[in-house]
Formats: sequence, C-alpha cells, structure tokens
Amino acid sequence: MPVGDLSFPNMPAISRIKLSAVSAGIKKNNQLDLMLIEFPVDATVAGVFTQNAFCAAPVTICKQHITQHPRYILVNAGNANACTGEQGMAAALDCCRAVAANTSVSYQQVLPFSTGVIGEPLPAEKIINGVPALFTGLNETNWLLAAKGIMTTDTCPKGATSSFEYAGEMIVVNGISKGAGMINPNMATMLGFIATNATVKQSVLDSLSFNAANQSFNRITIDGDTSTNDSCILVAAGETRCVVEESSSDLYRLLETAVNDVYKTLAQAIVRDGEGATKFITVQVEAGTTANECLQVAYAIAHSPLVKTACFASDPNWGRIVAAIGYAGITSLNVNNIRVYLDDVLIVENGGRADSYHEEAGQAVMNNSEITLRVCLGRGDAIETIWTTDLSHEYVTINAEYRT
Amino acid sequence: MPVGDLSFPNMPAISRIKLSAVSAGIKKNNQLDLMLIEFPVDATVAGVFTQNAFCAAPVTICKQHITQHPRYILVNAGNANACTGEQGMAAALDCCRAVAANTSVSYQQVLPFSTGVIGEPLPAEKIINGVPALFTGLNETNWLLAAKGIMTTDTCPKGATSSFEYAGEMIVVNGISKGAGMINPNMATMLGFIATNATVKQSVLDSLSFNAANQSFNRITIDGDTSTNDSCILVAAGETRCVVEESSSDLYRLLETAVNDVYKTLAQAIVRDGEGATKFITVQVEAGTTANECLQVAYAIAHSPLVKTACFASDPNWGRIVAAIGYAGITSLNVNNIRVYLDDVLIVENGGRADSYHEEAGQAVMNNSEITLRVCLGRGDAIETIWTTDLSHEYVTINAEYRT
Repeated sequence: MPVGDLSFPNMPAISRIKLSAVSAGIKKNNQLDLMLIEFPVDATVAGVFTQNAFCAAPVTICKQHITQHPRYILVNAGNANACTGEQGMAAALDCCRAVAANTSVSYQQVLPFSTGVIGEPLPAEKIINGVPALFTGLNETNWLLAAKGIMTTDTCPKGATSSFEYAGEMIVVNGISKGAGMINPNMATMLGFIATNATVKQSVLDSLSFNAANQSFNRITIDGDTSTNDSCILVAAGETRCVVEESSSDLYRLLETAVNDVYKTLAQAIVRDGEGATKFITVQVEAGTTANECLQVAYAIAHSPLVKTACFASDPNWGRIVAAIGYAGITSLNVNNIRVYLDDVLIVENGGRADSYHEEAGQAVMNNSEITLRVCLGRGDAIETIWTTDLSHEYVTINAEYRT
Repeated sequence: MPVGDLSFPNMPAISRIKLSAVSAGIKKNNQLDLMLIEFPVDATVAGVFTQNAFCAAPVTICKQHITQHPRYILVNAGNANACTGEQGMAAALDCCRAVAANTSVSYQQVLPFSTGVIGEPLPAEKIINGVPALFTGLNETNWLLAAKGIMTTDTCPKGATSSFEYAGEMIVVNGISKGAGMINPNMATMLGFIATNATVKQSVLDSLSFNAANQSFNRITIDGDTSTNDSCILVAAGETRCVVEESSSDLYRLLETAVNDVYKTLAQAIVRDGEGATKFITVQVEAGTTANECLQVAYAIAHSPLVKTACFASDPNWGRIVAAIGYAGITSLNVNNIRVYLDDVLIVENGGRADSYHEEAGQAVMNNSEITLRVCLGRGDAIETIWTTDLSHEYVTINAEYRT
C-alpha cells in the first residue's frame, strides 16, 4: 500500500492529446500492457533519458526519433527490451512501423518505450497485433486508462494535473508516471509522460523538461539503482494562442511552476509506491558549499541500508545518519559545525548528541509515515532535497521472489 | 550462521604478545566486553583507520598515540564512543590512563578502541574498574579469548594464523577480527588486530599494513556503510634475529604473503558472518582500464540491493548485474565488449544474453552458497576483486529490530 494519498486526480482533457491502452497479452491475465499517446503535428516534444550505459533498445531509438517531430508515444509494459542486442533494436523499430502503418506519419515519428523484464526478447508480434485496437481507442479523456496501461509492479496508477489561466486561456498540464522499484531492472523503469496544451518553443521546452526532471525524477531514489529504461517526456500540444518563447516571461514562470508541480507529484508518487515502502522520507541537506556536496550527503543517507532499516523500524537511530554523513566523501568536513534534525527536532550538534535532545521527541517523529531528515552542514548556502523510502521486509520479499 | 567454515584455528603463542579479556559489565549477561593486548618495548606498530569524517574519539586518539611507541591495545565492545564530543575524548583518555596506571608506560602508549552503539556516553568507570583483572589475565595463549572479547553482533569469534620458517626461525602471524554489519554504525565497527613475532622496521611495517588492509579489509562490503570506528592494527613483536628492513628481500616477500593471508582470511570471515548473510559473493572485475574503474563496477554490483536480493533468492537474474555495470559511471563504456559470468558460466556478451546461456546453468551456480560474479570489461589489463554478501530478510530483521 502506498504511503499517503495516491488517488488518481480528475484530469481535464487536453485538446488533440489522445490516449488509449489495451491488453496485448505481454502481461498475464489480460492486464493492460500497451499504451499509445497521439499528439498534433505542431506539438513540440522534449525528453530526458537514462544515463545507464546499458540503455535499452527503445531508449536508443527514442533519442534519435525525438528530433524528427514525433507524433506518437508507444509504451509496452511487461518486457523492457533491454540487453537484447541487435534483435532488440529491430523489434523496437518494427513496433514503430506498426504505428506508422495505421497513420500518415513515418516510423521515425514514433517514440517507443518498454518496461518490464530485462534480457528477454520483445514479443513484437503481440505489440504489432495490438496496435489497431490502440488507434480505435484513442480518446482525449483516457488519462487514467493510459496510466494503468504502463504499470508494472506499481500498486496503483499515478497521475498529476495542474492548470492556470493566462490572457483568457486555460493552460493545463497533465502527467502520468510509473515506477515501483527505482529501478527494479527486472521490472525495469521509471517512466513519466507529461503534456500541456500550451504552445512552447522547442528550446524553451527543452530547458523546462530538463529542469523539471532534475528537480523531481532525478531527486528520488528507492534502492539506488538506475534503470536501463528510465525516460521522461514532455509534450506541448501547441493549442494556445499565446506562445512561450522566452524563459524570462511571466507566462513561462507560470507554466514552469505548473510543470514542476506535476513532475514533482509524479516523482514523489513513485517513491510513495516504492517496493515495500512504509515511509516517505524527505532528505534535505542545507548550508553546503555546493549543490553537488549537498546531494552527495543526501544520497549517502538515502542509500544507507542502515538508515533505511532504522526508518522501517521507526527507530530514531541517529548514529546511522551521522555515520552516513561522515562517509559521504566531503572533504574538510568539520563535524562540530553539523546539525542534524528529525523534522524540527535537533538531535546532533557540536559533534555529538544535542543537549536538548530526548529520545521520546525523536521517537515521536519516527512513528510518522512521512519523515524529514534534515542536515545542516554549516559551511555554505547550497541546499538540496531528495525523496526516498525505508527498506522493509516487503522490499526483500518483492525483489527476492519476483521472478519465481 | 556464517557462510562456510569459521571454526577458530589453533593459534600458536607469540612470545611476549599477551592477551586477556574480561566482562566489565558494558554488555549484558556478563558477556566478555573488554580486551587487552600487551606487546614488548621493541615492537613496531602500524595501523589503518576509518576515513569517516565522524571518526570516533578512540580513533582520533589512536592516530596520535600510534607514533608514541605503543605498548597496549585496549578494546571495549558494547559502546562505540562515537559522536560523543569532548566528553568522549576525555573518557577514552581516562581509559588509557587506567592501563598506564597498572604499568610503567605512559597513557600515550595505549591505543584505545571502542565498538558498539554510537552516541551513548562511554561507561568509562566500568572499563577502568575492569583493567586490573585484564592485567591479571594476560597470557600468550589467549587469542581465542581475546577474539571473543571484541565481538558485538558477530555470531562467532574470528581468527587466522599463518607461519613459515626462515633461516632456522619460525615466523608466525596471528590475527583476530570482528565485524558483523559492515558497518552497522549502531553496533559499529570492523576491527582487526594482527601480530607477528618478526622484527620489522617501522617503514616496512607501515607499507605491509597499508597494502594488506587495502587488499582485504578495504575490499569487503556488506551494506556499503563505513563505520566511525573501523581500525586495523599490525604489531611486529621484534622477537626474531633476522630483521625485515627492505621491501625487496626474500624474507619480506614471505612475511608479506603470510600477513596478506591472515588479513584476507580475517576480512572474509567478517563477510561470511555478515548480518543475515546466506551467500558469500566474490565480485571480480577484470580487463578494466584502471584498478579504480574495476572497483567502481565491482562496488556498484556489490552495493546493488537488487543484485543482493536476487542472490538471496538464488535467482540468476543477470539483468540486475548488467544494470549495475551500466550505472557504475564508467565513461565510454562499450557494452558490446562486456562479458559477464556466473562462476564459469558465460551469461552476457555482445550487449545481450549469450547464445550459449541456459537458465539451468545459471541456476546451478546461484544455488551454491559461494558464488563468483565475474565481469570482463574488455578494455584494459586492470583487475580487482571484492567480497560481499546477499541481502536477506534476516539482515532487515537484525537492523530494524536491534535497538528494541
């Protein structure tokens, strides 16, 4: 069960962004496993992709196709088409061709995505056979259906929406995501698909997409693993009269806020539904010399199995947090200047337990399902925040027993 | 239960290296928790210490005292005296003074070590009260007792010995270690104490100690955490007529082999008895451009919770290994040149599953309790090996429930 409320929001339709999902028989029991998004010819599209050297065949193709004025996003769940060599590339291209065959677009205008087991041949025939039904089902109101169509070990569909009015026009940002393990390269992948009706210049969309992903999907971690398939796409349908051309305009700033909100909600939803998660943990590191230094400390804490198991046990075992700070690899760290807080409870200062600290106060914080671990490095102005989960028995069960 | 045979070896006495251990009441139920080693005035001593910025008070003191011709090693289990500020420093020095008061040495000639809970004040009085009984018990044959005296969550005492004859003299290397979590900053610390009767020049001993630790204690990982208290000490009693003065001599090479053997056995024993360990996993990365690159890949694999849970499940889930290689951060990695083996079974080549691979062969390897994950990067001559464990339910149980 996810941590917090992940009920799917009421998503307004975005004109000319159509979605559908069907069961193509890749997953068992007729579960939805194939999803299509169609967007208009004047849409702009931007994306960020996994840095994993073993990036999957569809990711390699997406990076090429995204510059060819894409019109379709095709996603299959149940098979990652990763570590599948030349055969995997051919299979992904065949799927793109199947979409193109139903339309007037070229196969290079189709962005393929896959999520599921690594190293198994993609069942391209099943996908190709499913494509006509996808076109039949295309509809502007299918956001929930589409979110369901990309799930793997997710326990619920994930969506977010934000809107604002500008110069008499309603501007909408909708998004869906999937995750579960982060990654679980077995049921690989974090995916995010976000669309707006706004008209956005390509270069502006690129930076919107990059910055939003950097403050959201790139700030979450469940187990420290990075998938072969992680991708996040932002589509601007080009339906509004007003055009976002400058990243200094008022409209840009309003859109940026809405986009960032949607990205952050989608990314946090992945953590809240992380495999076996019982806690949603915010790690905030402030007063660092650089943003990078803050992130180094934040990830050391967030990746520590000892911190994570202590969170699972609701144990205010601050020694483990302090040890993680200590081995994060920050040079010339003066431990006497560091303060550590559980929510607002000061636990560590002057190189040891704070005089004011009492275990009951720490215990009260740790009993909550949402916890902020805050570290003040006392050596600069940089600040960074990431989100993670605890490490539970359920995590071990899911990941030890998944393939059996 | 540890993986493999950890029965304590028959350790020969080393002349003028005396040991003892008592129960000082730091741990519950009259368990041994205080240990002393005495060595002669002409001994040379070398050590390596944790790089954790929050290094514990005793570690800070050890680093100073080790240059003052140390004569005693004093170790308490049950309390790490870490993150204890000025008070912790004073307490550790008080313990050194208690040892000095029973002898003619100065307190600066005592090396203090602590292992146990972080952030709790050291019960110095209990330790000081236990010191006289430690002196009464000093004996050259007490290696097993001493190994028991430093245990925390270890399930068994850990020892190793190696010896060889040179110029009519028998040269012995004995060692004991403790670990369990690596670290578990709650029951913090990996400790190793190794002694030889050989006469070794200080500068030679320094490099012997550094190199041996680098190929053993610095090549093991259970959960990726680095303790506030990790330390490893090498004592050369100076009992032999022949002196090891040059690192190019035959005698040096024989001694180096014996010392490395003892370090490696002690370090591997810590992994074999790692918290919740059901598998002993060797990760070997070869054909890398540099040693550092090999280590980066090896640690990415060894730290991946997904690889570790797959090992726990005896699941030949090679996609997780490949994903870890991919996100290890190696620049310009050509995945088509990489080969991955489970023991001798080739599972990945040419960017995908090897044609010759069948799951039954991988399953047969994974069913073993000792497994080698071997990665051939195909881009150089460097090779590195590290050792780790799986991630089991028992690990979560131990670390989630320890303090309760």
